[in-house]
Amino acid sequence: MRTSFACLMKPVLHGYFRSSCSWRVRIAFALKGIEYDHVPVNLIKDGGQQITDQYKELNPMQQVPTVTIDDITLSQSLAIIQYVDETRPGPRLLPADPKQRAKVRMICDIIASGIQPLQNLYVVQKIGTDKVQWAQHFINRGFVALESILKQTAGKYCVGNEISMADICLVPQVYNAERFKVDIKQFPTIKLLNQTLLELEAFKMSHPSHQPDAPDDLRI
Amino acid sequence: MRTSFACLMKPVLHGYFRSSCSWRVRIAFALKGIEYDHVPVNLIKDGGQQITDQYKELNPMQQVPTVTIDDITLSQSLAIIQYVDETRPGPRLLPADPKQRAKVRMICDIIASGIQPLQNLYVVQKIGTDKVQWAQHFINRGFVALESILKQTAGKYCVGNEISMADICLVPQVYNAERFKVDIKQFPTIKLLNQTLLELEAFKMSHPSHQPDAPDDLRI
Repeated sequence: MRTSFACLMKPVLHGYFRSSCSWRVRIAFALKGIEYDHVPVNLIKDGGQQITDQYKELNPMQQVPTVTIDDITLSQSLAIIQYVDETRPGPRLLPADPKQRAKVRMICDIIASGIQPLQNLYVVQKIGTDKVQWAQHFINRGFVALESILKQTAGKYCVGNEISMADICLVPQVYNAERFKVDIKQFPTIKLLNQTLLELEAFKMSHPSHQPDAPDDLRI
Repeated sequence: MRTSFACLMKPVLHGYFRSSCSWRVRIAFALKGIEYDHVPVNLIKDGGQQITDQYKELNPMQQVPTVTIDDITLSQSLAIIQYVDETRPGPRLLPADPKQRAKVRMICDIIASGIQPLQNLYVVQKIGTDKVQWAQHFINRGFVALESILKQTAGKYCVGNEISMADICLVPQVYNAERFKVDIKQFPTIKLLNQTLLELEAFKMSHPSHQPDAPDDLRI
Protein backbone atom coordinates (compact mmCIF):
# COMPACT_ATOMS: atom_id res chain seq x y z
CA MET A 1 0.00 0.00 0.00
CA ARG A 2 3.06 2.21 -0.01
CA THR A 3 2.29 3.89 -3.32
CA SER A 4 -1.29 4.74 -2.42
CA PHE A 5 -0.12 6.21 0.86
CA ALA A 6 2.56 8.24 -0.92
CA CYS A 7 -0.05 9.63 -3.29
CA LEU A 8 -2.00 10.97 -0.35
CA MET A 9 1.03 12.78 0.97
CA LYS A 10 1.70 16.35 -0.10
CA PRO A 11 4.62 16.81 -2.47
CA VAL A 12 7.69 18.36 -0.87
CA LEU A 13 9.42 21.18 -2.73
CA HIS A 14 13.03 21.82 -1.82
CA GLY A 15 13.59 25.29 -3.19
CA TYR A 16 14.90 28.79 -2.69
CA PHE A 17 12.70 31.86 -2.80
CA ARG A 18 14.82 33.66 -5.36
CA SER A 19 15.66 30.73 -7.65
CA SER A 20 13.80 31.19 -10.93
CA CYS A 21 13.62 27.42 -11.45
CA SER A 22 12.02 26.97 -8.01
CA TRP A 23 9.54 29.71 -8.89
CA ARG A 24 8.56 27.84 -12.06
CA VAL A 25 7.51 24.84 -9.95
CA ARG A 26 5.67 27.04 -7.45
CA ILE A 27 3.64 28.58 -10.29
CA ALA A 28 2.74 25.13 -11.65
CA PHE A 29 1.61 23.98 -8.19
CA ALA A 30 -0.44 27.16 -7.78
CA LEU A 31 -2.09 26.85 -11.21
CA LYS A 32 -3.03 23.24 -10.46
CA GLY A 33 -4.13 24.07 -6.92
CA ILE A 34 -1.66 21.59 -5.43
CA GLU A 35 -0.71 22.01 -1.79
CA TYR A 36 2.88 21.20 -0.96
CA ASP A 37 5.36 21.34 1.88
CA HIS A 38 8.29 23.66 1.41
CA VAL A 39 11.84 22.93 2.55
CA PRO A 40 14.02 26.00 2.09
CA VAL A 41 17.49 25.43 0.65
CA ASN A 42 19.47 28.61 1.11
CA LEU A 43 21.89 28.87 -1.82
CA ILE A 44 24.02 31.51 -0.09
CA LYS A 45 24.11 30.75 3.65
CA ASP A 46 26.96 28.56 4.96
CA GLY A 47 28.46 28.48 1.44
CA GLY A 48 25.16 27.14 0.10
CA GLN A 49 23.00 24.49 1.76
CA GLN A 50 22.73 22.68 -1.58
CA ILE A 51 26.28 21.37 -1.24
CA THR A 52 25.61 19.30 1.89
CA ASP A 53 25.86 15.51 1.59
CA GLN A 54 22.25 15.21 2.69
CA TYR A 55 21.00 17.43 -0.14
CA LYS A 56 23.37 15.88 -2.70
CA GLU A 57 21.66 12.59 -1.99
CA LEU A 58 18.37 14.14 -3.14
CA ASN A 59 19.83 16.18 -5.98
CA PRO A 60 23.25 15.11 -7.27
CA MET A 61 23.50 18.32 -9.36
CA GLN A 62 23.28 20.28 -6.07
CA GLN A 63 20.69 22.61 -7.50
CA VAL A 64 17.15 23.64 -6.67
CA PRO A 65 14.36 22.71 -7.09
CA THR A 66 13.97 19.10 -6.04
CA VAL A 67 10.51 17.65 -5.55
CA THR A 68 9.57 14.43 -3.80
CA ILE A 69 6.20 13.30 -5.06
CA ASP A 70 4.42 9.93 -5.34
CA ASP A 71 7.45 8.10 -3.94
CA ILE A 72 9.92 9.49 -6.47
CA THR A 73 12.44 12.31 -6.26
CA LEU A 74 12.69 14.58 -9.26
CA SER A 75 15.00 17.41 -10.14
CA GLN A 76 14.84 19.72 -13.19
CA SER A 77 11.87 22.06 -13.14
CA LEU A 78 10.46 21.19 -16.58
CA ALA A 79 10.53 17.46 -15.84
CA ILE A 80 8.74 18.14 -12.55
CA ILE A 81 6.12 20.41 -14.14
CA GLN A 82 5.36 17.95 -16.94
CA TYR A 83 5.05 15.10 -14.42
CA VAL A 84 2.61 17.15 -12.39
CA ASP A 85 0.71 18.05 -15.54
CA GLU A 86 0.46 14.42 -16.63
CA THR A 87 -0.65 13.08 -13.25
CA ARG A 88 -2.77 15.82 -11.66
CA PRO A 89 -6.14 17.33 -12.57
CA GLY A 90 -6.64 21.04 -13.11
CA PRO A 91 -5.89 23.29 -16.07
CA ARG A 92 -3.46 21.66 -18.47
CA LEU A 93 -0.02 23.28 -18.66
CA LEU A 94 0.68 22.14 -22.23
CA PRO A 95 -1.81 22.66 -25.07
CA ALA A 96 -3.67 19.69 -26.54
CA ASP A 97 -2.51 20.41 -30.09
CA PRO A 98 0.95 18.92 -30.87
CA LYS A 99 2.11 21.98 -32.85
CA GLN A 100 1.14 24.32 -30.04
CA ARG A 101 2.78 21.99 -27.51
CA ALA A 102 5.96 22.08 -29.58
CA LYS A 103 5.93 25.87 -29.60
CA VAL A 104 5.46 25.93 -25.82
CA ARG A 105 8.37 23.54 -25.34
CA MET A 106 10.55 25.55 -27.75
CA ILE A 107 9.96 28.73 -25.73
CA CYS A 108 10.57 26.89 -22.45
CA ASP A 109 13.83 25.42 -23.73
CA ILE A 110 15.09 28.76 -25.05
CA ILE A 111 14.75 29.98 -21.47
CA ALA A 112 15.71 26.78 -19.62
CA SER A 113 18.68 25.86 -21.83
CA GLY A 114 19.53 29.08 -23.67
CA ILE A 115 19.28 31.75 -20.98
CA GLN A 116 18.90 30.65 -17.36
CA PRO A 117 21.89 28.26 -17.14
CA LEU A 118 24.22 31.01 -18.36
CA GLN A 119 23.17 33.57 -15.80
CA ASN A 120 22.56 31.45 -12.73
CA LEU A 121 24.36 32.09 -9.46
CA TYR A 122 26.91 29.30 -9.78
CA VAL A 123 28.01 30.26 -13.30
CA VAL A 124 28.06 33.99 -12.67
CA GLN A 125 30.19 33.43 -9.55
CA LYS A 126 32.59 31.34 -11.62
CA ILE A 127 32.96 34.10 -14.24
CA GLY A 128 34.65 36.29 -11.64
CA THR A 129 34.90 39.74 -13.20
CA ASP A 130 32.23 41.31 -15.39
CA LYS A 131 29.53 39.16 -13.81
CA VAL A 132 26.72 41.59 -14.55
CA GLN A 133 27.87 42.24 -18.10
CA TRP A 134 28.08 38.48 -18.74
CA ALA A 135 24.56 37.88 -17.42
CA GLN A 136 23.15 40.87 -19.31
CA HIS A 137 24.71 39.62 -22.53
CA PHE A 138 23.05 36.21 -22.35
CA ILE A 139 19.70 37.51 -21.17
CA ASN A 140 19.66 40.12 -23.94
CA ARG A 141 20.62 37.57 -26.58
CA GLY A 142 17.85 35.26 -25.42
CA PHE A 143 15.26 38.00 -25.12
CA VAL A 144 15.94 39.26 -28.66
CA ALA A 145 15.14 35.74 -29.91
CA LEU A 146 12.16 35.29 -27.58
CA GLU A 147 10.66 38.65 -28.52
CA SER A 148 10.76 37.68 -32.18
CA ILE A 149 9.17 34.27 -31.51
CA LEU A 150 6.55 35.53 -29.04
CA LYS A 151 5.40 38.16 -31.55
CA GLN A 152 4.27 35.25 -33.69
CA THR A 153 2.97 32.84 -31.03
CA ALA A 154 1.40 35.09 -28.39
CA GLY A 155 -2.24 35.80 -27.85
CA LYS A 156 -3.14 36.89 -24.38
CA TYR A 157 -0.39 34.57 -23.13
CA CYS A 158 2.89 33.26 -24.60
CA VAL A 159 1.23 30.75 -26.93
CA GLY A 160 -2.32 31.71 -27.80
CA ASN A 161 -4.86 32.44 -25.10
CA GLU A 162 -4.20 29.53 -22.77
CA ILE A 163 -1.69 29.69 -19.93
CA SER A 164 1.10 27.19 -20.45
CA MET A 165 4.51 26.10 -19.26
CA ALA A 166 5.94 28.86 -21.50
CA ASP A 167 4.33 31.49 -19.26
CA ILE A 168 5.64 29.61 -16.23
CA CYS A 169 9.17 29.98 -17.60
CA LEU A 170 8.84 33.55 -18.86
CA VAL A 171 7.91 35.41 -15.69
CA PRO A 172 10.76 34.13 -13.47
CA GLN A 173 13.21 34.85 -16.30
CA VAL A 174 11.98 38.45 -16.54
CA TYR A 175 12.47 38.69 -12.76
CA ASN A 176 16.10 37.61 -13.24
CA ALA A 177 16.51 40.09 -16.10
CA GLU A 178 15.32 42.92 -13.86
CA ARG A 179 17.73 41.88 -11.11
CA PHE A 180 20.56 42.17 -13.66
CA LYS A 181 19.22 45.56 -14.82
CA VAL A 182 18.32 44.48 -18.34
CA ASP A 183 16.08 47.12 -19.91
CA ILE A 184 12.83 45.21 -20.52
CA LYS A 185 11.33 48.12 -22.47
CA GLN A 186 13.37 46.92 -25.45
CA PHE A 187 11.11 43.86 -25.56
CA PRO A 188 7.50 45.10 -25.69
CA THR A 189 5.89 41.69 -26.19
CA ILE A 190 7.79 40.15 -23.27
CA LYS A 191 7.03 43.20 -21.12
CA LEU A 192 3.30 43.06 -21.81
CA LEU A 193 3.04 39.29 -21.29
CA ASN A 194 4.92 39.58 -18.02
CA GLN A 195 2.62 42.37 -16.79
CA THR A 196 -0.49 40.40 -17.74
CA LEU A 197 0.76 37.23 -16.04
CA LEU A 198 1.82 38.99 -12.85
CA GLU A 199 -1.79 40.03 -12.35
CA LEU A 200 -2.82 36.39 -11.93
CA GLU A 201 -3.15 34.92 -8.45
CA ALA A 202 -0.95 31.89 -9.20
CA PHE A 203 1.94 34.12 -10.23
CA LYS A 204 1.42 36.51 -7.32
CA MET A 205 1.28 33.93 -4.54
CA SER A 206 4.34 32.10 -5.87
CA HIS A 207 6.42 35.31 -6.24
CA PRO A 208 9.83 35.22 -4.49
CA SER A 209 8.86 38.11 -2.23
CA HIS A 210 5.92 36.09 -0.85
CA GLN A 211 7.93 33.05 0.19
CA PRO A 212 8.55 32.09 3.81
CA ASP A 213 12.32 31.97 3.22
CA ALA A 214 12.52 35.48 1.74
CA PRO A 215 14.31 37.96 3.99
CA ASP A 216 12.00 40.41 5.76
CA ASP A 217 13.12 43.43 3.72
CA LEU A 218 12.12 41.68 0.48
CA ARG A 219 8.77 40.38 1.67
CA ILE A 220 5.76 42.37 0.51
CA MET B 1 -5.08 21.19 -48.56
CA ARG B 2 -1.87 22.91 -47.55
CA THR B 3 -1.36 20.93 -44.36
CA SER B 4 -1.82 17.56 -46.05
CA PHE B 5 0.68 18.55 -48.69
CA ALA B 6 3.16 19.69 -46.03
CA CYS B 7 2.81 16.36 -44.22
CA LEU B 8 3.89 14.55 -47.34
CA MET B 9 7.03 16.63 -47.56
CA LYS B 10 10.18 15.45 -45.84
CA PRO B 11 11.23 17.43 -42.77
CA VAL B 12 14.25 19.67 -43.32
CA LEU B 13 16.98 19.60 -40.69
CA HIS B 14 19.27 22.60 -40.58
CA GLY B 15 22.20 21.29 -38.61
CA TYR B 16 25.93 20.92 -38.23
CA PHE B 17 27.68 17.56 -38.20
CA ARG B 18 29.52 18.21 -34.94
CA SER B 19 26.73 19.93 -32.99
CA SER B 20 25.55 17.60 -30.24
CA CYS B 21 22.05 19.09 -30.36
CA SER B 22 21.83 18.41 -34.12
CA TRP B 23 22.98 14.86 -33.48
CA ARG B 24 20.14 14.37 -30.96
CA VAL B 25 17.61 15.15 -33.68
CA ARG B 26 19.39 12.91 -36.20
CA ILE B 27 19.20 9.99 -33.74
CA ALA B 28 15.47 10.58 -33.20
CA PHE B 29 14.84 10.64 -36.96
CA ALA B 30 16.88 7.46 -37.37
CA LEU B 31 15.07 5.63 -34.54
CA LYS B 32 11.71 6.59 -36.04
CA GLY B 33 12.86 5.78 -39.58
CA ILE B 34 12.07 9.30 -40.78
CA GLU B 35 13.73 10.49 -43.97
CA TYR B 36 14.73 14.14 -43.99
CA ASP B 37 16.57 16.68 -46.07
CA HIS B 38 19.71 18.10 -44.56
CA VAL B 39 20.83 21.71 -44.89
CA PRO B 40 24.30 22.14 -43.45
CA VAL B 41 24.89 25.24 -41.31
CA ASN B 42 28.61 25.58 -40.77
CA LEU B 43 29.12 27.14 -37.33
CA ILE B 44 32.76 28.06 -38.06
CA LYS B 45 33.04 29.06 -41.75
CA ASP B 46 32.65 32.75 -42.62
CA GLY B 47 32.32 33.56 -38.89
CA GLY B 48 29.45 31.10 -38.64
CA GLN B 49 26.63 30.67 -41.15
CA GLN B 50 24.11 30.76 -38.31
CA ILE B 51 24.54 34.51 -37.96
CA THR B 52 23.22 35.34 -41.44
CA ASP B 53 19.92 37.26 -41.66
CA GLN B 54 18.44 34.39 -43.64
CA TYR B 55 19.16 31.86 -40.90
CA LYS B 56 18.16 34.25 -38.10
CA GLU B 57 14.74 34.38 -39.70
CA LEU B 58 14.45 30.61 -39.17
CA ASN B 59 16.14 30.52 -35.78
CA PRO B 60 16.31 33.80 -33.87
CA MET B 61 18.72 32.24 -31.32
CA GLN B 62 21.14 31.64 -34.23
CA GLN B 63 21.75 28.08 -33.14
CA VAL B 64 21.39 24.63 -34.64
CA PRO B 65 19.31 22.56 -35.08
CA THR B 66 16.25 24.04 -36.73
CA VAL B 67 13.66 21.75 -38.27
CA THR B 68 10.88 22.67 -40.66
CA ILE B 69 8.17 20.04 -40.45
CA ASP B 70 4.41 19.98 -41.13
CA ASP B 71 4.42 23.68 -42.03
CA ILE B 72 6.04 24.85 -38.78
CA THR B 73 9.60 25.79 -37.92
CA LEU B 74 10.97 24.51 -34.64
CA SER B 75 14.19 25.09 -32.80
CA GLN B 76 15.40 23.43 -29.57
CA SER B 77 16.21 19.76 -29.99
CA LEU B 78 14.03 18.40 -27.17
CA ALA B 79 10.96 20.28 -28.44
CA ILE B 80 11.63 18.91 -31.93
CA ILE B 81 12.14 15.33 -30.70
CA GLN B 82 8.98 15.36 -28.58
CA TYR B 83 6.97 16.79 -31.49
CA VAL B 84 8.25 14.02 -33.74
CA ASP B 85 7.47 11.46 -31.04
CA GLU B 86 3.92 12.74 -30.63
CA THR B 87 3.12 12.89 -34.34
CA ARG B 88 5.02 10.03 -35.96
CA PRO B 89 4.74 6.25 -35.70
CA GLY B 90 7.64 4.02 -34.74
CA PRO B 91 9.20 3.20 -31.36
CA ARG B 92 8.19 5.72 -28.71
CA LEU B 93 10.98 7.95 -27.45
CA LEU B 94 9.40 8.54 -24.03
CA PRO B 95 8.12 5.69 -21.84
CA ALA B 96 4.38 5.21 -21.36
CA ASP B 97 4.59 5.36 -17.55
CA PRO B 98 4.56 8.95 -16.18
CA LYS B 99 7.23 8.26 -13.54
CA GLN B 100 9.56 6.76 -16.10
CA ARG B 101 8.83 9.67 -18.49
CA ALA B 102 9.72 12.09 -15.70
CA LYS B 103 13.03 10.31 -15.12
CA VAL B 104 13.81 10.45 -18.84
CA ARG B 105 13.05 14.18 -18.95
CA MET B 106 15.12 14.78 -15.80
CA ILE B 107 18.15 13.12 -17.38
CA CYS B 108 17.61 14.99 -20.65
CA ASP B 109 17.37 18.33 -18.85
CA ILE B 110 20.49 17.71 -16.77
CA ILE B 111 22.29 17.40 -20.10
CA ALA B 112 20.35 19.98 -22.12
CA SER B 113 20.23 22.67 -19.41
CA GLY B 114 22.94 21.66 -16.96
CA ILE B 115 25.85 20.62 -19.18
CA GLN B 116 25.61 21.34 -22.91
CA PRO B 117 24.82 25.09 -22.73
CA LEU B 118 27.89 25.69 -20.58
CA GLN B 119 30.33 23.99 -22.92
CA ASN B 120 28.97 24.87 -26.32
CA LEU B 121 31.08 26.66 -28.92
CA TYR B 122 29.63 30.13 -28.40
CA VAL B 123 30.07 30.12 -24.62
CA VAL B 124 33.50 28.55 -24.65
CA GLN B 125 34.65 31.14 -27.20
CA LYS B 126 33.33 33.91 -24.95
CA ILE B 127 35.26 32.56 -21.93
CA GLY B 128 38.50 33.42 -23.66
CA THR B 129 41.26 31.80 -21.59
CA ASP B 130 40.97 28.42 -19.89
CA LYS B 131 38.36 27.28 -22.41
CA VAL B 132 39.15 23.60 -22.03
CA GLN B 133 39.32 23.77 -18.23
CA TRP B 134 35.94 25.57 -18.14
CA ALA B 135 34.29 22.96 -20.37
CA GLN B 136 35.85 20.08 -18.44
CA HIS B 137 34.62 21.52 -15.16
CA PHE B 138 30.99 21.66 -16.27
CA ILE B 139 31.02 18.31 -18.02
CA ASN B 140 32.60 16.66 -14.98
CA ARG B 141 30.13 18.27 -12.60
CA GLY B 142 27.23 17.08 -14.75
CA PHE B 143 28.63 13.59 -15.26
CA VAL B 144 29.15 13.08 -11.52
CA ALA B 145 25.43 13.80 -11.06
CA LEU B 146 24.37 11.76 -14.09
CA GLU B 147 26.45 8.76 -13.05
CA SER B 148 24.74 8.73 -9.66
CA ILE B 149 21.25 9.00 -11.22
CA LEU B 150 21.88 6.51 -14.03
CA LYS B 151 23.09 3.91 -11.53
CA GLN B 152 19.54 3.93 -10.20
CA THR B 153 17.54 4.30 -13.42
CA ALA B 154 19.50 2.29 -15.99
CA GLY B 155 18.74 -1.12 -17.29
CA LYS B 156 20.16 -1.89 -20.69
CA TYR B 157 19.60 1.79 -21.55
CA CYS B 158 19.46 5.03 -19.52
CA VAL B 159 15.99 4.37 -18.09
CA GLY B 160 15.13 0.68 -17.99
CA ASN B 161 15.38 -1.46 -21.08
CA GLU B 162 13.69 0.81 -23.60
CA ILE B 163 15.58 3.36 -25.67
CA SER B 164 14.42 6.87 -24.86
CA MET B 165 15.17 10.54 -25.32
CA ALA B 166 17.63 10.19 -22.41
CA ASP B 167 19.82 7.92 -24.55
CA ILE B 168 19.46 10.37 -27.42
CA CYS B 169 20.92 13.08 -25.17
CA LEU B 170 23.60 10.98 -23.50
CA VAL B 171 25.61 9.79 -26.49
CA PRO B 172 26.22 13.21 -28.10
CA GLN B 173 27.19 14.60 -24.67
CA VAL B 174 29.76 11.84 -24.21
CA TYR B 175 31.11 12.72 -27.67
CA ASN B 176 31.56 16.32 -26.48
CA ALA B 177 33.19 15.10 -23.27
CA GLU B 178 35.71 13.10 -25.28
CA ARG B 179 36.48 16.12 -27.48
CA PHE B 180 37.29 18.07 -24.30
CA LYS B 181 39.43 15.16 -23.02
CA VAL B 182 37.24 14.33 -20.03
CA ASP B 183 38.23 10.92 -18.69
CA ILE B 184 35.05 8.85 -19.19
CA LYS B 185 36.51 5.92 -17.26
CA GLN B 186 35.58 7.80 -14.06
CA PHE B 187 31.91 7.20 -14.98
CA PRO B 188 31.48 3.45 -15.55
CA THR B 189 27.68 3.54 -15.99
CA ILE B 190 27.87 6.36 -18.55
CA LYS B 191 30.74 4.62 -20.33
CA LEU B 192 28.89 1.31 -20.61
CA LEU B 193 25.61 2.88 -21.74
CA ASN B 194 27.46 4.90 -24.38
CA GLN B 195 29.23 1.80 -25.70
CA THR B 196 25.98 -0.17 -25.85
CA LEU B 197 24.15 2.64 -27.65
CA LEU B 198 26.91 3.25 -30.17
CA GLU B 199 26.45 -0.32 -31.38
CA LEU B 200 22.95 0.52 -32.59
CA GLU B 201 22.38 1.43 -36.22
CA ALA B 202 20.45 4.64 -35.42
CA PHE B 203 23.36 5.98 -33.38
CA LYS B 204 25.93 4.87 -35.95
CA MET B 205 24.31 6.36 -39.04
CA SER B 206 23.66 9.68 -37.27
CA HIS B 207 27.22 9.97 -35.91
CA PRO B 208 29.01 13.25 -36.76
CA SER B 209 31.69 11.42 -38.74
CA HIS B 210 29.03 9.97 -41.08
CA GLN B 211 27.47 13.29 -42.04
CA PRO B 212 27.77 14.83 -45.50
CA ASP B 213 29.11 18.09 -44.06
CA ALA B 214 31.90 16.42 -42.04
CA PRO B 215 35.37 17.21 -43.39
CA ASP B 216 36.97 14.33 -45.29
CA ASP B 217 39.58 13.60 -42.60
CA LEU B 218 36.83 13.04 -40.00
CA ARG B 219 34.59 10.87 -42.14
CA ILE B 220 34.81 7.17 -41.47
